[in-house]
Amino acid sequence: MTPTREQCAARDAADPLHALRAEFDLPAGVLYLDGNSLGALPRRTPGHLAKVVEGEWGAGLIRSWNDAGWFHQPGRLGDRLGAHLLGAAPGQVVVCDSTSVNLFKVLGAALRLRPGRPALLVERHAFPTDLYIADGLSGLHPGTRPVLLDSAARLDAALDSEAAVVLLSHVDYRTGELLDMAAVTERIHAAGALAVWDLCHTAGALPIHLDAAGVDFAVGCGYKYLNGGPGAPAFLYAAARHQADARQPLTGWFGHARQFDFEPGYRPAEGVTRFLTGTPPVLGLAALEAALEVWELADPAAVRLKSLELTDLFLELTADLDVEPVTPREPARRGSQVALRHPDGHAVVQALIARGVIGDFRAPDLMRFGFTPLYLSRADVHDAATALREVLASGEWRAERFARRGDVT
Amino acid sequence: MTPTREQCAARDAADPLHALRAEFDLPAGVLYLDGNSLGALPRRTPGHLAKVVEGEWGAGLIRSWNDAGWFHQPGRLGDRLGAHLLGAAPGQVVVCDSTSVNLFKVLGAALRLRPGRPALLVERHAFPTDLYIADGLSGLHPGTRPVLLDSAARLDAALDSEAAVVLLSHVDYRTGELLDMAAVTERIHAAGALAVWDLCHTAGALPIHLDAAGVDFAVGCGYKYLNGGPGAPAFLYAAARHQADARQPLTGWFGHARQFDFEPGYRPAEGVTRFLTGTPPVLGLAALEAALEVWELADPAAVRLKSLELTDLFLELTADLDVEPVTPREPARRGSQVALRHPDGHAVVQALIARGVIGDFRAPDLMRFGFTPLYLSRADVHDAATALREVLASGEWRAERFARRGDVT
Repeated sequence: MTPTREQCAARDAADPLHALRAEFDLPAGVLYLDGNSLGALPRRTPGHLAKVVEGEWGAGLIRSWNDAGWFHQPGRLGDRLGAHLLGAAPGQVVVCDSTSVNLFKVLGAALRLRPGRPALLVERHAFPTDLYIADGLSGLHPGTRPVLLDSAARLDAALDSEAAVVLLSHVDYRTGELLDMAAVTERIHAAGALAVWDLCHTAGALPIHLDAAGVDFAVGCGYKYLNGGPGAPAFLYAAARHQADARQPLTGWFGHARQFDFEPGYRPAEGVTRFLTGTPPVLGLAALEAALEVWELADPAAVRLKSLELTDLFLELTADLDVEPVTPREPARRGSQVALRHPDGHAVVQALIARGVIGDFRAPDLMRFGFTPLYLSRADVHDAATALREVLASGEWRAERFARRGDVT
Repeated sequence: MTPTREQCAARDAADPLHALRAEFDLPAGVLYLDGNSLGALPRRTPGHLAKVVEGEWGAGLIRSWNDAGWFHQPGRLGDRLGAHLLGAAPGQVVVCDSTSVNLFKVLGAALRLRPGRPALLVERHAFPTDLYIADGLSGLHPGTRPVLLDSAARLDAALDSEAAVVLLSHVDYRTGELLDMAAVTERIHAAGALAVWDLCHTAGALPIHLDAAGVDFAVGCGYKYLNGGPGAPAFLYAAARHQADARQPLTGWFGHARQFDFEPGYRPAEGVTRFLTGTPPVLGLAALEAALEVWELADPAAVRLKSLELTDLFLELTADLDVEPVTPREPARRGSQVALRHPDGHAVVQALIARGVIGDFRAPDLMRFGFTPLYLSRADVHDAATALREVLASGEWRAERFARRGDVT
């Protein structure tokens, strides 16, 4: 017996996390199931940004690099993110650049830590930028060759003495499948290779324990579940044990040991600071900081429990529809999104958007619905399932205006 | 006979550019001569940013990638910048990443366009990040070796058949010396090498004519004269004639030919778009867009004339002081800053800052004063020179509190 909307609303009323919804500024008439692509705007972000723009930049001018602490913002935000959401002790996370650029840096550093091993392993169905960056980097490391894994489940067969580095997505951006980070990292280490994790679809979606899992390097995105805003700065993690030996290829002045001595030669800074490159994007960092304040009001374990409840509820409420769920039902293998296969998925998603229910689509046939527990409720899930039911039953998605055009992560 | 403050103010009153000062929000009691490090806040920036944050992000959410044109913002801003300030026809400039990261991209592309030539020439006194990036990149191009030029004037001796790429600063960040871009580029081309220009200290300081000068690649900064805000996105220029063959190393998904087809293999996009890497920093781009609107109110040729007048005036008003000017007096060899040498320059700059006159210092002994014609007047220059005269005469800079600590570009 699937729950009624009233039952869903009653459970929302009893949920302490439900109050956090008031921290977000969501447009009227929209049911937003795409926080896995671009998180919603926290209500406190505009005010915080105005303070930084008008107070720190406008009034403080160049002095704010010291007086407002802009210099240390990449590491300070990294530490807060590490402590609250990534399970990383201080001094291992910096917020900077884009995910793609950070991936280039950590993969470059990791390859140099495993000289003589030629293979860089990447999932064939990784998010494309991971493949492209791995490919571009390999071209600069003669002898290195990318090895495409059919799936993470086939990892063991490829883990031999040639394996230098394995890049894996913690959650698959298409299916929402979650990997066991600790167990997989252990297998990678047993083969003598290094584990690099892409956390784009898990940072802010579920508690991550990078230190406990023994992860070597990781990267992730600031604009999805973290709610840092469009094109927010990304982050990277470099385990403390690797930092002294790590050499990343994008050797810019913010990663130098004595930046303002203006030495002609590059000497990497101590610690994770050596992974910085250019001048930090202060305004983007400010928006991410406001979003982190909201995150610090939430218990990540409670967020995870609610996330599983929301995705479970959506799977249950859509189980009888003519769609094929590809997201695992087992909680331990599920991220915070549900992907449903439908041969005309693109048109169905467009028809839902026309009704104000915003999910997204990934070629060739996956409809993705992201469930962000900070601002979505069980009643929202019920409404979304009802909308999908009605769109499929009515056939309204067959309208010409829903035919395929470009879309966005 | 040096002009009086009254004469300076009278000239300001007759200057059409003087009205643009009202476009900037400058704090009371501050005379800001560090716009060459961090430009001032345009008054229209907070409102424009709020519109993008609350309207496009908050209300538009993921739809704004298409509806608000976020996708095309790197190229659209690049085209505007190119048309108004860089002398670049459309389709050759993108706004993205940091200067350091963009330098890595264009140097990487340029080296690949000159296979078999091992030398990457960089000035020994280039801004350090240029040296560091050139060094890091060379480490990834076996056979490539950085060659340090004692000065740009010594370029010809190093320009032989081994020279692949020459990286030069259009204006020297220390001395304010300006190079003749067209003439130097021609000499580089005559040797069969490619010319990469760092425009950090000229974009927004004087009209640039990249196409006319035959430049191959260029990079520059958004947060200095352009007034894009702290850590603003940087820009890069890739001449149209090189684009089809150019392969840059940071191959991310925003540089792919068919980004949303999610192909496993990387295929570079047509044109300058192939120089994009990760997701564009939408909020940083918005701040830069507001600043560009102000720039589009100014005639760059008039800005240049006023800049020369301001720097000339400052040199004239300080000519009798116990400081050594290192900025060339010839207009054709001068950027928009004045550098004065003083053995205790750091303390003198700190004493000036304590009086509200903000310049900066570059080790070991250079005091830098940037003159930004959009928001500085001749009366300001007179006041700054008077303050410097008084600080030097009083010896107040000898106070303990002005002893050296960290500072910032």
